Amino acid sequence: SHSINLAVIPGDGIGQEVVSQGLKVLSAVLPQDVKLETKEFDFGAKRYHATGETLTDADLDALKQHDAILLGAIGDPSVPSGVLERGFLLKLRFAFDHHVNLRPSRLLPGVATPLAGQPVIDFVVVREGTEGPYTGNGGTIRKGTEHEVATEVSVNTAFGVERVVRDAFARAQARPRKKLTLVHKNNVLTFAGHLWTNIFDKVAQEYPEVTTDYLHVDAATIFLVTDPARFDVIVTDNLFGDIITDLAAAVSGGIGVAASGNINPSGDFPSMFEPVHGSAPDIAGQGKADPTATVLSVALLLRHLGHESEAVRIEEAVAADLAERGTTPRTTEEIGDALAVRVAS
Amino acid sequence: SHSINLAVIPGDGIGQEVVSQGLKVLSAVLPQDVKLETKEFDFGAKRYHATGETLTDADLDALKQHDAILLGAIGDPSVPSGVLERGFLLKLRFAFDHHVNLRPSRLLPGVATPLAGQPVIDFVVVREGTEGPYTGNGGTIRKGTEHEVATEVSVNTAFGVERVVRDAFARAQARPRKKLTLVHKNNVLTFAGHLWTNIFDKVAQEYPEVTTDYLHVDAATIFLVTDPARFDVIVTDNLFGDIITDLAAAVSGGIGVAASGNINPSGDFPSMFEPVHGSAPDIAGQGKADPTATVLSVALLLRHLGHESEAVRIEEAVAADLAERGTTPRTTEEIGDALAVRVAS
Ligand SMILES: CC(C)[C@H](C(=O)O)[C@@H](O)C(=O)O
Ligand SMILES: CC(C)[C@H](C(=O)O)[C@@H](O)C(=O)O
Repeated sequence: SHSINLAVIPGDGIGQEVVSQGLKVLSAVLPQDVKLETKEFDFGAKRYHATGETLTDADLDALKQHDAILLGAIGDPSVPSGVLERGFLLKLRFAFDHHVNLRPSRLLPGVATPLAGQPVIDFVVVREGTEGPYTGNGGTIRKGTEHEVATEVSVNTAFGVERVVRDAFARAQARPRKKLTLVHKNNVLTFAGHLWTNIFDKVAQEYPEVTTDYLHVDAATIFLVTDPARFDVIVTDNLFGDIITDLAAAVSGGIGVAASGNINPSGDFPSMFEPVHGSAPDIAGQGKADPTATVLSVALLLRHLGHESEAVRIEEAVAADLAERGTTPRTTEEIGDALAVRVAS
Repeated sequence: SHSINLAVIPGDGIGQEVVSQGLKVLSAVLPQDVKLETKEFDFGAKRYHATGETLTDADLDALKQHDAILLGAIGDPSVPSGVLERGFLLKLRFAFDHHVNLRPSRLLPGVATPLAGQPVIDFVVVREGTEGPYTGNGGTIRKGTEHEVATEVSVNTAFGVERVVRDAFARAQARPRKKLTLVHKNNVLTFAGHLWTNIFDKVAQEYPEVTTDYLHVDAATIFLVTDPARFDVIVTDNLFGDIITDLAAAVSGGIGVAASGNINPSGDFPSMFEPVHGSAPDIAGQGKADPTATVLSVALLLRHLGHESEAVRIEEAVAADLAERGTTPRTTEEIGDALAVRVAS
């Protein structure tokens, strides 16, 4: 494609700062003949306070006109917990059917990890994005009384599980190690666990070259710190994926470098790319935020749109920058500038 | 009390080996005037294969006659996933209302951790044990078809949450740092999240000396590897507790030394103590299993029954043994013998 029509959602806190650098690197990496058009949207805490809106039908229609979405971060302590998460972030994932939540973890040379012995870490988590305990099913009775009962319903469908399992097998097949691990808790959550395990085993038969593996989510957290090199591709449910990808980010360089894609592989709706970190209001506006996670999310965005060589150029620029990163802290803008220079050359 | 009437469940795999050493240390630490009576129960895979039974009403009646239960491990690959977990382990926790699932994490001197820089780790997780997604609520429709839907229902009651939150505040109040962290995911699981958060905030008012803190479960996994020293007492739901206590065990010396208690503080039913590890069938019968986690579970058992000084003697013996542990591997029995000698002297 010779133009990219991008929706940009800077959001709250450090969102604006990191997105600016992401766009800078994006402009620098694109060849002359690819036209980049961006449209900025004002979602987040400010708009919520001003209008009470988080994401309207008209907003969804406007976003739908784009090839992809780049998001900084949404969330502010002034908004009650859950309002922007359920009303914006999850609403968008569900409305645009972002069922493949892709979260790569690579420990790059020169990057600090809390783990001893600098292990090899290079895996990708395919997290289901539209089902599980994230559906908002459930409710509360007798709220605020001593007889209150609150439920949360994890909804899992053969349709939803099979498509994400298929996506994960295809990704594993395309990687050199060809290994796929299913992470669940099928010894306790037996209803959902059987569904996931049966579909996983069924699809596995179509991929004889892919080595498969199963881990309970609790055991998976152990291996993420004792033997992360064992992982190649992981497929898991929405909630387990949320938990293990934060842990995966922590061991492979921190959330300052963790990128993610909320992908709808059908292309019926634009996919959304965002750093795994949040809005970090404590350091907002100080030029301290590391834009690397956003820049790596731009690489995922380019790969999704078919610009593979540009995606690789960004990833190589980030790897080179991290390898040479000294101990002198740089500002958000300095890091963005350095990466823009690298991808352009 | 001048007698301990103990139900012993060796179970499967390495269960028998580690429980023998636990009992050896228990006998060695008890003063002459405390009479120890033990009764062994044959629950686990063998009995399931022979009779189809996991835990009958008669079994529960028999277990109820004891002051406490010591369990090795239950589980074998010959039994389908979920059968012994739901049919024995969880059935027992629910039947005896083991709502306080206590899991201490201490990184002792001389013990290896996957974390760089040997951080200070000394916290305890109070995991709810009778609610959440562990209740077995949920179901499956159109099983095995492309239209299958499987649900899991997390059930949370004010009654169940308040009692475990109160237990955790009391424990935090009794510790020098007096800090309690609530771990949940209240920005997504808003029904259960509000219940937990509101009750936590309400009970906090009765404990003005306790510093409180809230973390989403995903963020908690990050801090468990980047800054575990920040934790003192953690209170959390059944599933989040399952996940973070395995991670906590991994960073504080591994599941070879992680103990747990499934406690009913009312005393209406006997509490059960068990190592966090499983039955490890791959090393069963080889004398390779580390009995330390079981021995530390015996210390929790003694503390629960009011034998505080004996509990401390065991914990000190384990700390001394670990500090002096060389690189020559010892057998299960050698470790048990060494600990028995230490507690007796
Ligand atoms: C903010 C929250 C809704 C979100 C999630 O739980 O998915 C975040 O933790 C993430 O991982 O993207
Ligand atoms: C075996 C399983 C049922 C159990 C649990 O999930 O509680 C185990 O993982 C534990 O932590 O004791």
